[in-house]
Amino acid sequence: MTEQPYDESIKTHPGLKGVYLDDTKISYIDGENGRLYYRGYSIEHLVENSTFEEVIYLLIYGHLPSRYELFTLRNTLVHEREIPDRILMVLKSFPRETTRIELLRTAISALSLFDVEDYDYSKEANIRKGIRIIAKIPTILSYSHRIKSNLPIIEPHDNLSHAGNFYYMMTGNEPDEAIERAFDKALILQSEHSSNASSFAARVTVSTLSDIYSAIVSAIGTLRGPLHGGANERAIMMLKEIGEPERAEEYIREKLDRKERIMGFGHRVYKVMDPRAKIYKELSEEWCEREGNQHLLEISRIIEDMMMREKGLYPNVDFYSASFLYSVGVPILLYTPLFAASRAAGWVAHTIEQLENNKLIRPLMRYRGDIDRKYLPLDNR
Amino acid sequence: MTEQPYDESIKTHPGLKGVYLDDTKISYIDGENGRLYYRGYSIEHLVENSTFEEVIYLLIYGHLPSRYELFTLRNTLVHEREIPDRILMVLKSFPRETTRIELLRTAISALSLFDVEDYDYSKEANIRKGIRIIAKIPTILSYSHRIKSNLPIIEPHDNLSHAGNFYYMMTGNEPDEAIERAFDKALILQSEHSSNASSFAARVTVSTLSDIYSAIVSAIGTLRGPLHGGANERAIMMLKEIGEPERAEEYIREKLDRKERIMGFGHRVYKVMDPRAKIYKELSEEWCEREGNQHLLEISRIIEDMMMREKGLYPNVDFYSASFLYSVGVPILLYTPLFAASRAAGWVAHTIEQLENNKLIRPLMRYRGDIDRKYLPLDNR
Repeated sequence: MTEQPYDESIKTHPGLKGVYLDDTKISYIDGENGRLYYRGYSIEHLVENSTFEEVIYLLIYGHLPSRYELFTLRNTLVHEREIPDRILMVLKSFPRETTRIELLRTAISALSLFDVEDYDYSKEANIRKGIRIIAKIPTILSYSHRIKSNLPIIEPHDNLSHAGNFYYMMTGNEPDEAIERAFDKALILQSEHSSNASSFAARVTVSTLSDIYSAIVSAIGTLRGPLHGGANERAIMMLKEIGEPERAEEYIREKLDRKERIMGFGHRVYKVMDPRAKIYKELSEEWCEREGNQHLLEISRIIEDMMMREKGLYPNVDFYSASFLYSVGVPILLYTPLFAASRAAGWVAHTIEQLENNKLIRPLMRYRGDIDRKYLPLDNR
Repeated sequence: MTEQPYDESIKTHPGLKGVYLDDTKISYIDGENGRLYYRGYSIEHLVENSTFEEVIYLLIYGHLPSRYELFTLRNTLVHEREIPDRILMVLKSFPRETTRIELLRTAISALSLFDVEDYDYSKEANIRKGIRIIAKIPTILSYSHRIKSNLPIIEPHDNLSHAGNFYYMMTGNEPDEAIERAFDKALILQSEHSSNASSFAARVTVSTLSDIYSAIVSAIGTLRGPLHGGANERAIMMLKEIGEPERAEEYIREKLDRKERIMGFGHRVYKVMDPRAKIYKELSEEWCEREGNQHLLEISRIIEDMMMREKGLYPNVDFYSASFLYSVGVPILLYTPLFAASRAAGWVAHTIEQLENNKLIRPLMRYRGDIDRKYLPLDNR
């Protein structure tokens, strides 16, 4: 065994913190001032004025659609909502206790086998496939949720918007205009956030010139983790576990004393409050009151104050989205998958952008082990 | 629209070229001298002395197994070879023209739904799940290959080694000792290569604390790309298309003139010849002669000389593996998936190492677009 080649002069970047990968034109996060822009439009403007369909177009093509472009996109999304019978059979054949995000990962992987453009790697085909994936995610999620919950599946409703139809397929209720708009805002808010772990995973996958389905599958598997997409599911469980505002302070105090993580706080990029968290807080205030969930709101506010006082941490996008989604009636088991349905727009945009000026993504690692070890035969070990 | 926040003082790292992610103890690539070590053992030593089973153990646990440890691992691998009936049904239900790597990606994603330890995220459970995945990949690949080729599937053979059984299930022939050893060497050679794109993708996925199945699924999708695992499949197609040594020079000349890529040459890390390429060249020389494929060897040598003369590029691991795998009788459609079967050992090791000292992997991107764009109502666009 000779001396190890460990080179202390090499600087490592755990988590790639502070490392800039490349240029992007998709979104801009101003962490100092708590601003977020999609293709140059502030998130506040978009939530106020646009629809998820417009945002899909904007993220992928770089400009807001004309009336005709929007009409075409909406039509495509409606017509691509259905999934092949064999995918439905696959969803039905799986064990009932599995989570929706694992089913989504599997179904999207399987869907590539049925896409006639699977082997067309042109930009145009990639965009078409990307929009097809975005269109089908709500169907897969709603089907798998209802199958697992022993509820009859609900076929897509052609006359509803993307958000409205998604809500309808999940709950079985046609949404009123207020719920549709509120749910649409949630989809807009979560659809893009620069090179977050899942979008970055999509870029890594496609950087080998692999296909867009593989990229989205990687993104879904990455989103699944509690440090990324899994947080608001845990946040609502916490709010429900606390149950009453009077118990909130003690509950959080005990958790902090045990050095446990409180889900829904802090962000690597934002130094001030995440602009999406601000909008979710407003939405949560509106909908918790409307639906009689003031206690969840009250608990949330107590936790927010405590976390600021004790840790100096702001709530992130996951914290108030939890009580909001709960109040509009989204099944809790769909919170993380719902994030995927929205973020798919950003994933497609990142995949296309990566391929436009591709370079294989492959960092180095600093070796910190032994070298030239002597191979001992099995009997001498 | 205000001025864009594009900051030229920020340095980007396209492809993360030259960026060191973190420390690793799994493998060490000495690109200057053309050396490769797994856990400190040179690849030449391992190919000469060990088996793929020993290398799996070595990569995951960090030391060569004792006789008892190896016995236990071999037993586990044999007992975990089978796949649930419903996964077999899924494989059978898919369109016949799909590639094996897409089926593998889908089947591994689906397998997580059947793993009783799916929700145990301990290191021990992750290792068990990782070994289970490694055990099942040859079965999935062989089954899906034979289903797609209209051949009867072949059940795993309990008395054969990992390599021997894999060969048997693919071809229907029990391998003689020479083929088994040669094929075993191929599995050892491709099992690990530091933070290559697929292993890096597995790390990115698991860095959100997602599960090991998601990580391996990301790795498979990433390996699929022609810039990574897809290269030797293309290399053998090229050798077969050339057909006769006399045509090689002209064929390559024309491709180079058209600035087309010749598959199987050059490597971002090795400045000299890749040590795996050297071993594959020896294996290819032995097996091309044994199986009467001297013409493929001859064509390969002409291309190697030309590429060195014209471009200064050495053959990489994909180039001579093509004619070697062809000569031992591995179906061409399984070259890329075969790479996955071998590299899975490294993927598991990287997943475990990442989780031991985890930090969410999330780089930044430099924004290069407009900002504060004014939202125009639909009618004014």
